Amino acid sequence: MVISAMRVHHEQIEVRTKGKGTYEITDAIQEKIDKCKIDNGTVTIFVQHTSCSLTMMENAAPAARRDLETFFERLVPEDADYEHDDEGPDDSTSHIRMVLTQSSETVPIADGKMQLGTWQGIFLFEHRRAAHRRRISLTIIGE
Amino acid sequence: MVISAMRVHHEQIEVRTKGKGTYEITDAIQEKIDKCKIDNGTVTIFVQHTSCSLTMMENAAPAARRDLETFFERLVPEDADYEHDDEGPDDSTSHIRMVLTQSSETVPIADGKMQLGTWQGIFLFEHRRAAHRRRISLTIIGE
Amino acid sequence: MVISAMRVHHEQIEVRTKGKGTYEITDAIQEKIDKCKIDNGTVTIFVQHTSCSLTMMENAAPAARRDLETFFERLVPEDADYEHDDEGPDDSTSHIRMVLTQSSETVPIADGKMQLGTWQGIFLFEHRRAAHRRRISLTIIGE
Repeated sequence: MVISAMRVHHEQIEVRTKGKGTYEITDAIQEKIDKCKIDNGTVTIFVQHTSCSLTMMENAAPAARRDLETFFERLVPEDADYEHDDEGPDDSTSHIRMVLTQSSETVPIADGKMQLGTWQGIFLFEHRRAAHRRRISLTIIGE
Repeated sequence: MVISAMRVHHEQIEVRTKGKGTYEITDAIQEKIDKCKIDNGTVTIFVQHTSCSLTMMENAAPAARRDLETFFERLVPEDADYEHDDEGPDDSTSHIRMVLTQSSETVPIADGKMQLGTWQGIFLFEHRRAAHRRRISLTIIGE
Repeated sequence: MVISAMRVHHEQIEVRTKGKGTYEITDAIQEKIDKCKIDNGTVTIFVQHTSCSLTMMENAAPAARRDLETFFERLVPEDADYEHDDEGPDDSTSHIRMVLTQSSETVPIADGKMQLGTWQGIFLFEHRRAAHRRRISLTIIGE
């Protein structure tokens, strides 16, 4: 008889953003995985907002991230003609940038570690000009 | 000895679309989760098509969704020069819009409820002009 | 007493790319699922790189994939003004195209088979000009 040791563990992290940009959360996620003692499985990272998002990104060169941010400023410009601007010129642009990136990512865990490539970092992508507290939910499933 | 109560449950929902646009499926997904009595885990939502997709979106302001739809009409216009147009001018545009959005999302479940943020809704994003029946697969994993 | 048969199984596939383009990996993924004897659950596909990505795509018409590739050449052109070009003109474009597509996808498995729609294929999307060996991690969770 095989007894399954599979279980589910929920965690939450909070990121205080200071306006538009990318904020690395890789280490904060790994710390929560370390704590729950699941060696083998997956972590699902889920952003509970519609005006910021998740993205994997090159974690070594800040210039690569600046290029990414500049690209999104051009692709989804604030000065276009949006119908929805209750919360300012970054309102519809925030939602559209969220749609073009990710709300959830699922990453494999083996030997207790996220199986990221050498240059892969996980980032919160803030699309609002103002500072915000952002909640990110982690669900770790495994054994 | 710990006995795992983990299990897998599959469900399917069908959405009848009436042409291009976003169709909310949040409640339909939650109803299937209620039925399967998994309190703690994740639901993976998967669209089984290549000319519609999934997106998280602001669920309160219809104007925000109209801005999103207008943005995609401009970003991936029907009147560009596509090689693949067997099924009409919305053929390649549908596939490209699908690629730029999501085919799968994984959302945490705690206390039997999807852990969505206040303004987060889950939408089927139809990219075809004609009415379609769309199949969305749900896989609920948890205990 | 119900004994859970849930387990986690990791696999890896390698793709040798020959420059920019889409490379189908659907069958390679299904072969790994066949081998691990999990009939019911999900497979999470995860690309361990920041200059290539994953995409679902129409699997029958090569013209649809050529339109997709042309679209990305125009949306994220190599000849724009990027700050990060240590590895050539395809450096920042690769990362941005990765961000606009997927690093992870989770696909349901029932009766041992991925529950894909008729026209859905899973592709590695290579954004680099040069040939590369790409590692894709698979995590199969189920019973």
